Amino acid sequence: MIFIRAISRSNTVLNRIIRNAVPAIRSRFINSNFGFRYCSASLAAMVSTDMEVEALRKLVMEKQSVVEKQGDAVRALKASKAAKEEIDRAVNYLKELKIDLQSSSRELQSKLSDDGAALSKEAFRQAVNNTLERRLFYVPSFKIYRGVAGLYDYGPPGCAVKANVIAFWRQHFVLEENMLEVDCPCVTPEVVLKASGHVDKFTDLMVKDEKTGMCYRADHLLKDYCKEKLEKDPLLPVDKVNELKQVLALLDELSAEALGAKIKEYGITAPDTKNPLSDPYPFNLMFSTSIGPSGLSPGYMRPETAQGIFVNFKDLYYYNGNKLPFAAAQIGQAFRNEISPRQGLLRVREFTLAEIEHFVNPDDKSHPKFKNVSNLEFLIYSREEQMAVKPPVKIRLGDAVAKGTINNETLGYFIGRTYLFLTNLGIDKERLRFRQHLQNEMAHYAADCWDAEIECSYGWIECVGLADRSAYDLKAHTEKSGVPLVAHETYSEPREVEKLVITPAKREMGMAFKKNQKMIVEALEAMNEEEAMDLKARLESDGKASFEVCTLGQTVTLTKDMVSISKEIKKEHQRVFTPSVIEPSFGIGRIIYCLFEHCFYTRASKAGDEQFNVFSFPPLVAPIKCTVFPLVQNEKYERTAQIISKSLTTAGISHKIDMTGTSIGKRYARTDELGVPFAITVDFEASVTIRERDSKDQIRVSVEEVASVIKEVTEGQSTWADILWRYPTHTSTSADE
Amino acid sequence: MIFIRAISRSNTVLNRIIRNAVPAIRSRFINSNFGFRYCSASLAAMVSTDMEVEALRKLVMEKQSVVEKQGDAVRALKASKAAKEEIDRAVNYLKELKIDLQSSSRELQSKLSDDGAALSKEAFRQAVNNTLERRLFYVPSFKIYRGVAGLYDYGPPGCAVKANVIAFWRQHFVLEENMLEVDCPCVTPEVVLKASGHVDKFTDLMVKDEKTGMCYRADHLLKDYCKEKLEKDPLLPVDKVNELKQVLALLDELSAEALGAKIKEYGITAPDTKNPLSDPYPFNLMFSTSIGPSGLSPGYMRPETAQGIFVNFKDLYYYNGNKLPFAAAQIGQAFRNEISPRQGLLRVREFTLAEIEHFVNPDDKSHPKFKNVSNLEFLIYSREEQMAVKPPVKIRLGDAVAKGTINNETLGYFIGRTYLFLTNLGIDKERLRFRQHLQNEMAHYAADCWDAEIECSYGWIECVGLADRSAYDLKAHTEKSGVPLVAHETYSEPREVEKLVITPAKREMGMAFKKNQKMIVEALEAMNEEEAMDLKARLESDGKASFEVCTLGQTVTLTKDMVSISKEIKKEHQRVFTPSVIEPSFGIGRIIYCLFEHCFYTRASKAGDEQFNVFSFPPLVAPIKCTVFPLVQNEKYERTAQIISKSLTTAGISHKIDMTGTSIGKRYARTDELGVPFAITVDFEASVTIRERDSKDQIRVSVEEVASVIKEVTEGQSTWADILWRYPTHTSTSADE
Repeated sequence: MIFIRAISRSNTVLNRIIRNAVPAIRSRFINSNFGFRYCSASLAAMVSTDMEVEALRKLVMEKQSVVEKQGDAVRALKASKAAKEEIDRAVNYLKELKIDLQSSSRELQSKLSDDGAALSKEAFRQAVNNTLERRLFYVPSFKIYRGVAGLYDYGPPGCAVKANVIAFWRQHFVLEENMLEVDCPCVTPEVVLKASGHVDKFTDLMVKDEKTGMCYRADHLLKDYCKEKLEKDPLLPVDKVNELKQVLALLDELSAEALGAKIKEYGITAPDTKNPLSDPYPFNLMFSTSIGPSGLSPGYMRPETAQGIFVNFKDLYYYNGNKLPFAAAQIGQAFRNEISPRQGLLRVREFTLAEIEHFVNPDDKSHPKFKNVSNLEFLIYSREEQMAVKPPVKIRLGDAVAKGTINNETLGYFIGRTYLFLTNLGIDKERLRFRQHLQNEMAHYAADCWDAEIECSYGWIECVGLADRSAYDLKAHTEKSGVPLVAHETYSEPREVEKLVITPAKREMGMAFKKNQKMIVEALEAMNEEEAMDLKARLESDGKASFEVCTLGQTVTLTKDMVSISKEIKKEHQRVFTPSVIEPSFGIGRIIYCLFEHCFYTRASKAGDEQFNVFSFPPLVAPIKCTVFPLVQNEKYERTAQIISKSLTTAGISHKIDMTGTSIGKRYARTDELGVPFAITVDFEASVTIRERDSKDQIRVSVEEVASVIKEVTEGQSTWADILWRYPTHTSTSADE
Repeated sequence: MIFIRAISRSNTVLNRIIRNAVPAIRSRFINSNFGFRYCSASLAAMVSTDMEVEALRKLVMEKQSVVEKQGDAVRALKASKAAKEEIDRAVNYLKELKIDLQSSSRELQSKLSDDGAALSKEAFRQAVNNTLERRLFYVPSFKIYRGVAGLYDYGPPGCAVKANVIAFWRQHFVLEENMLEVDCPCVTPEVVLKASGHVDKFTDLMVKDEKTGMCYRADHLLKDYCKEKLEKDPLLPVDKVNELKQVLALLDELSAEALGAKIKEYGITAPDTKNPLSDPYPFNLMFSTSIGPSGLSPGYMRPETAQGIFVNFKDLYYYNGNKLPFAAAQIGQAFRNEISPRQGLLRVREFTLAEIEHFVNPDDKSHPKFKNVSNLEFLIYSREEQMAVKPPVKIRLGDAVAKGTINNETLGYFIGRTYLFLTNLGIDKERLRFRQHLQNEMAHYAADCWDAEIECSYGWIECVGLADRSAYDLKAHTEKSGVPLVAHETYSEPREVEKLVITPAKREMGMAFKKNQKMIVEALEAMNEEEAMDLKARLESDGKASFEVCTLGQTVTLTKDMVSISKEIKKEHQRVFTPSVIEPSFGIGRIIYCLFEHCFYTRASKAGDEQFNVFSFPPLVAPIKCTVFPLVQNEKYERTAQIISKSLTTAGISHKIDMTGTSIGKRYARTDELGVPFAITVDFEASVTIRERDSKDQIRVSVEEVASVIKEVTEGQSTWADILWRYPTHTSTSADE
């Protein structure tokens, strides 16, 4: 449960939440009555048993039916044109019911995904991370200076994996889709991030130790307090258990005031000093700096790469021949000055994003290549399923779009391509799902939002966000910069459009109304068709007509010569509009971390007395494609190894020679731990063996052929099974272990 | 001349200058006498003629001989053990002479490289840059908000070129040399950059408009003033001309005081307002920020990537099996908050660096692969040649190392590899040289420094710095962090070492000398071998001996029982030492800009009435490898084009289809301007033509073969000449223009 909530402010997806201009639902929390309080007892009685899940499921279904009934009631009130106050009261109550339903739904979801193996998850994570740090996949940055929280270095194997993931991303998205890639600076002037909303809204709530000035994330402290109470106090009264659980469920929705009130109520103090805490206040998560020497040009390190694309829309549209749709992409660093980074590589202060902005005509979101992905079938977790507290469903992508679960073909196409991208990297299909945002998770302007979530030891982690953001971003920058970021649709033939034409006669009106003229003219021009035609009729029949000018608070009398009103047929050659944007945004570091977990396993030595670690990376992402081992230290074998190394280099295959006299079993184990898929062992001068990492199968190949065989199987032209079939297998005389 | 100086503070190479711990030579400027003042008149009389170069050359040679004579004089003084003051005076005078010599040498160099075509250079640069901006290779960042000086976006073709350059760098250096690549954050805590010297020394001198607070680089203002005076005032007295030229020549060496004095003397005011200016003061060029919410952890955006490698030395050394030599590498963003960025893409506030730190035993800088590059021959501009004001010389790399011009094999190896890297990208061999740093350009700890300089319209631009930095960086971080960043050399057999052992008998000495004991013990332990053996002999013969303790200012009497002195044979198993580091540092943006200029040319249309722009990028770096054009708009051709597109995608070849009905000549011209090397034109269903960009030759190839032919020639397995020979040439019926 904690994991699911923790990730909802994730780096990759925070974008969307922050850019959201809707007043946050959280502000309603403190006034609300908490529907279903009567259910508290049943909730509180639940402990970790199988029964619990069933009970919770039943409860949620009950709540669901209450929500539906209240929904019916609201509709009935509206239909009967009831008083506004009455409708508002019913709507508010409905909202409260929904929030409460959602809280219980989440709890159930969390229980469903929690197999009670929290401890073994923890142990697994430890094993993975120990291996990762020991083999320098990553290490805390600036370690010799005691490090900085939330900053990590990728060491050689991690860096190679990252480079491979990025190269594949570029191949899979930019090249195959003919996207327009751009590369913009990280340093960004304030005006850009003011327009995007980051300067005002990209915040977390923070509290300060009133004596030492140490800072904490307010929701973290409250979460920790609740968790600890629930876990460590078995005598907690049932009411209290329920209350704490509800606080946990609604943590993300709490306003600064509500958070502060809870912290006071529970007497939470600074964890390090037990000093009192300040009230929560928003802390902007951007790293700020100053551009140039004057100190007069504030700037920030970009919190996402997307804005660089939006501000270039006009040029990119032109570059694309003034045609829609097209997609722009950017891979680069982004920065978030987290208050208190947690969860290792998943919540960091600097990270690599790969973002796509696909610009499309809002009236036509079909995609010509959708058919290429429509037959893919994978876990889709729609809003309906989530609200009904059902598990995600394996469904054909084409069906999800046809049924309208996924809003449109283009969004569906990117979901399909993302699925292919992730599974090709080595992400386990069964631990990957696409989860739709609930209505209140989305910005008001968003048409639809999905997250690619990958399950790891921290729970389901949002690694890719896919959002149809409508025209929001381009409009925001158009407004702030004054440069229209729009597209033109030229009609193949001019279209005839009937237009209302209102032409005030300025001289006559000026003489009649003097300084009021302007207001009256504006009021005339603002008339809708019905009003205008009514006025026209009255003027024509009576020669004059009374006309109410709201802005003046007066009614004036117009004569026929003062205004001409007509409908005219006009020819239009084009339509000008702001394109919609569909944004797939990839958190590269998170994907890599999940990949590490999915590829990690241990296997016992033959004697069973040792455990060996293996990363089963596909060749595509493996940091090194193969190793070359002379079986024993002698000049002949070493010369052969050098010859092989040279041919591998020519073939462009990254590899490493290990000339040490260490036992071959140990050398295999060492490279298994780096995820190297193939090992070439030189045990003759003319032929050598190739060992595959996971099966430990070995084949015998001539020295001349070995580089081309490795190339074939690492570049995916053949599978290992194909190769096995073609070459004699080698029964190891030199024991693997 | 201006170019040469402007670049000496360049982004890629500033590192070295800034990290330099030598007290800057500039501080001596204001006290110096300016040697050779008598030469002024001849300098001033020079105008742009051929005569001038010869006269200047003669002058420099005269100065050179004066320097040599003064050098002899200094040596003679030292040999004769002259008084310290006298030697110092002579040395100082020698330094002044050298500075002056250097200034004249530079002027001559600049004249030699200036072909009097400054105006056409300007026009050429305009043409290149117009094309680059129009075709979105790059654009000023945040243009719709009126941009920020020194920040640029790479648009689609620029971004593709950059990605190709980086991919090739990774292949050429990291993979082929088995380097350990790392990826560290840009956000860096202050302590790291304090240790590296950046916090204290990474500065430029700045002046402020005293009324508006606008900032200017002090040396830029002085330079602009001098240049303008020289260019626009033909009646300037000869003395003044000479003075201004000398100021220009020594601009980089001026202290804050000297700069301020000149600005006052010339009455220079703020260019925008004519307000008075402040005194010059140092402005730190790092973007500063704050890590975490407390405001108590200052940080900076890294000004180079190298420090991330140094602080990880211990882990990387371990990763490499505790063996030297090895190289680590990093590609990433670096940041410099320039006071007033100029020169487009050459002087920017954010840029991509690719840096290598090759760690090596200081006693053995040989390189096993040096023989692979030793036969390369290219322009080498040694310190001697520069001082003798001769042009750079084409020389075999092996000879340059053998003669000692290049300090060692490893440095030579990287120079050779850098040459191959740059020329493979498409940098013109004739406009690439390796220039050695003059003695006063280098840090005191540096063993040798070279710059790969590429000539472009701005002059010779430093694009790669190659420095043997000895142990400086690792020692600085060892000292600051307390973590020893050292290597161990284990002897194959323990070595016997004779060691002097001095063991004071503390009890006896304590009783005899009381509080003076400590000083006496220290003095005993500080004896060298000769002194110790002398003392031992006296003690043994007399039973006591007098001993002078400088720190006490006393002579004391020691007895035989107070100290034991002996020589002992000890076994040592290993040596602990700080490795030397050889640092090749690549400014990716600068290399790309020079590449743009080197690849750009124009050619007239057949009719001669139009000029077409071409970028002759090699396929390796071309943003798109080929285009596919249906000759005319019809369904059959378009279907064929789609089939070809699919096979190109499968082959991993980036390409673009242009289905517009535009004339084929126009479509060729459009892609020539993007540097696309090959165009496939679909004029039949079964076969198509391939046109090569620069020769405009066309061959006819079947639809099935076309992708593999393009792959072969873009990946370098065959040349276009090979291909031409194999396939029928096609005489264009569809005119190229």
